Amino acid sequence: MDSLQEVCEKVLALINPSKEEVDKVGALVEALKAKASEEALKLGFEADPQVYGSFAKGTWLSGEADIDLFLRVPAHVTRQEMAEKSLKIGEAVVEALGGHWIKRFAEHPYVEGWIEGIRVNIVPCFRVERGLWLSAADRSPFHTEYVMARLKEDGKSQVRLLKRFMKGIGVYGADIKTGGFSGYLCELLILRYGGFKEVLEAARSWRRGFIIDLEGYYEGRKDDARKIFPEPLIVVDPVDEGRNVASAVRPNRLGEFMAAAGLFLDRPSMRFFYPPPRIRLTSDEFSSTLSKRGTCWILILFAPLEVVPDVLWGQMYSSLRAISRFLRNQGFNVLREAAWSDEGRLNAFLVELDRRTLPKARLHLGPPVTSKESHAFLAKYLKNEDTISGPWIHGNRWVVLLKRKRIDAVELIREVFKTKASIGIRSKIAEAMDRHLEILTDGEITKAYSRSEGLATFLMDFLVGRPPWLWED
Amino acid sequence: MDSLQEVCEKVLALINPSKEEVDKVGALVEALKAKASEEALKLGFEADPQVYGSFAKGTWLSGEADIDLFLRVPAHVTRQEMAEKSLKIGEAVVEALGGHWIKRFAEHPYVEGWIEGIRVNIVPCFRVERGLWLSAADRSPFHTEYVMARLKEDGKSQVRLLKRFMKGIGVYGADIKTGGFSGYLCELLILRYGGFKEVLEAARSWRRGFIIDLEGYYEGRKDDARKIFPEPLIVVDPVDEGRNVASAVRPNRLGEFMAAAGLFLDRPSMRFFYPPPRIRLTSDEFSSTLSKRGTCWILILFAPLEVVPDVLWGQMYSSLRAISRFLRNQGFNVLREAAWSDEGRLNAFLVELDRRTLPKARLHLGPPVTSKESHAFLAKYLKNEDTISGPWIHGNRWVVLLKRKRIDAVELIREVFKTKASIGIRSKIAEAMDRHLEILTDGEITKAYSRSEGLATFLMDFLVGRPPWLWED
Repeated sequence: MDSLQEVCEKVLALINPSKEEVDKVGALVEALKAKASEEALKLGFEADPQVYGSFAKGTWLSGEADIDLFLRVPAHVTRQEMAEKSLKIGEAVVEALGGHWIKRFAEHPYVEGWIEGIRVNIVPCFRVERGLWLSAADRSPFHTEYVMARLKEDGKSQVRLLKRFMKGIGVYGADIKTGGFSGYLCELLILRYGGFKEVLEAARSWRRGFIIDLEGYYEGRKDDARKIFPEPLIVVDPVDEGRNVASAVRPNRLGEFMAAAGLFLDRPSMRFFYPPPRIRLTSDEFSSTLSKRGTCWILILFAPLEVVPDVLWGQMYSSLRAISRFLRNQGFNVLREAAWSDEGRLNAFLVELDRRTLPKARLHLGPPVTSKESHAFLAKYLKNEDTISGPWIHGNRWVVLLKRKRIDAVELIREVFKTKASIGIRSKIAEAMDRHLEILTDGEITKAYSRSEGLATFLMDFLVGRPPWLWED
Repeated sequence: MDSLQEVCEKVLALINPSKEEVDKVGALVEALKAKASEEALKLGFEADPQVYGSFAKGTWLSGEADIDLFLRVPAHVTRQEMAEKSLKIGEAVVEALGGHWIKRFAEHPYVEGWIEGIRVNIVPCFRVERGLWLSAADRSPFHTEYVMARLKEDGKSQVRLLKRFMKGIGVYGADIKTGGFSGYLCELLILRYGGFKEVLEAARSWRRGFIIDLEGYYEGRKDDARKIFPEPLIVVDPVDEGRNVASAVRPNRLGEFMAAAGLFLDRPSMRFFYPPPRIRLTSDEFSSTLSKRGTCWILILFAPLEVVPDVLWGQMYSSLRAISRFLRNQGFNVLREAAWSDEGRLNAFLVELDRRTLPKARLHLGPPVTSKESHAFLAKYLKNEDTISGPWIHGNRWVVLLKRKRIDAVELIREVFKTKASIGIRSKIAEAMDRHLEILTDGEITKAYSRSEGLATFLMDFLVGRPPWLWED
């Protein structure tokens, strides 16, 4: 077993950019800024190009440089003008530098370009005073400034280690799909605790509602912060006391980070930073493993959605929860559920039940024996073909044993989708299901296993149900 | 449909004793008292024979006269002397009058005799002042005196109606088996509400913790009474404010009484007083009805116990609850359970589950990811042949999907009894089971159905699961 220091040194050698890489990205940054100024001037548009984000702060990982070029426009510019002109500038800049681009949407449309293998986001924001935010991106300059003023050279390496660790265990990224930790959050954690190891040590004792408040905005009134921020981890934004930098972190991601932190500290290993390749089962192996476990899988495959990833995943997770909730309300025991998408051709929901059918009989609790509803209850169940036993009296309530009409989960799900019953499937997902929908179980799932590499990996991961960093060395 | 008055008149004609019957029982009472005085004198024992109970109060039902002959002895007599001498007197009295007797046990041993088809209990008690009770029977003279002083002639008929109604619906009797209403309780209810109909009307609006307090002991402090008496119905004893006359009434019996009261008032019928004969299924009909319902019955037959009924039923109910609790803790869904005994040759427990087996897999919630127990948990489940999936992280806890080892309820119950695992079976029941035990399910139960008339009725009642007074006319 390597020591923690040895592992960290190995990782740092892989993630700290070389002087050549820094110079190369630096040159691109300068070219981007110059070109953007030139294009803004052409349009007669006052837009100050600045680079914020991980490049500016020096916390990017070798081979993964992302350049965030912000076009800062005066506050009096209309949103429409800002959007239109910054798109034009962005497109022209990327093209002039020999790259290609696509239009992306966040709060505003923006340009995502690729130049010499480096991703460049060209994003407009308003030049405002701190606190007088007009758009979400307006905070970025202040974030960059805050970190740059405080993060020492060694701190940058520590941020890189933390980011790589989080990427390795799958908790990095504040996007909806991941629901994890942003880069800025990593930087604040290093500022708070001093180093990578110290963050992991601290994470071992975080409790629900733990507060990190670098600027002491909630000094002496932590309960106020907990009322304002409902999330399990609270990291007050040093440039905006009304914002939780960790608001995107979902409970499972937080738990995974805390679990991995503890295990890594006890047994340091490269696999936390670079997950080992997954074991891949053959179709036959998959099939026999699946049939042996004795549970019931329901795989729902459906057509792609033409929406940005955050919208896709927002609707995916919400619709998946609706399906689980529906099955639970019907009496099924949902063990786990998961969503998968290749963000282009195929989407999937997977639900695991402890068994496919419900018991044929169920107790039905009636009204109190002295209530007015007694007569209606007795009229309904005394002569009813679904009544198996009773009614009898338990305590002060009527009880009857009834035959259950629908006992098969797969049939029930098929019927729900066929009749388009309202169970909470979101609109875009429902539309996609109208275009193409398959509901598979048992042996049918093995066929889907051979259909797509991504889907097979998803099914394998679900079968194993264990984070890769937990696999034995 | 007869009116309520018509039904009551029909019933009264059946239950009010004729003058001949009153005279016959009265003559027996006088003979008993005279003989008892004579026997006491012979023994040189100061024991004043008095008749209390329903005969003294004139609230007994035609054909069901019970004579409670109390031998009142001075408070200075030792319990042993009281017991020995009163037994001797009792035996001599019954034999002198040509009856036969057996020794029964309550707080003290006593003589239960049968003379000319009439049951006679000869019971010792101490002559004490009110409140200075030395034995439970000491209150009887005061109860009788209280009722006699207040109950008018018409009230006696009303008490009889109420008793017959309670017998008809199966809630009469403060014995452990029944857990219902005593005769004294019926009398107090009539004193409180004035008549049979009025008691039923009042019962429709009883709520948990309803208090009847004829002497106003808890006037203005009803919550105190509810703290002292945990039972669902509280009827403060007019001769002892520390005693709830309804303490024996179990919640199901109370619910049944309240339900039947409401239904009877809405649709008066003789069947509430005299339950219709049960439909009896043939063995084949029983078998096919049972197999169609799709649930799982487990019938446990065992040897008789040589104990008095109250001890038998106390141990029966408590052991039955233990079996249900055990099955529920194992994850089974117990729909209903019941105990049966012919109080002599055979005893039975019957449990109905919604199905016989548990799912093959179960989620097991582990410790919080940051707890010290994490390592032990992972060591146990990462390489474990029972681990189907995981461990993974849900919120801040480890979770693992495990193979369930024992999934068959019948096998589990057989194993528990074979290994004599401690699940709460009471001692006398366990001893009886050592002598003879059968655990039957499905088709095996049909064989038992043909074995005993009483058992067959019990199984039929369970199958129907509906009080006889609920059957349609």
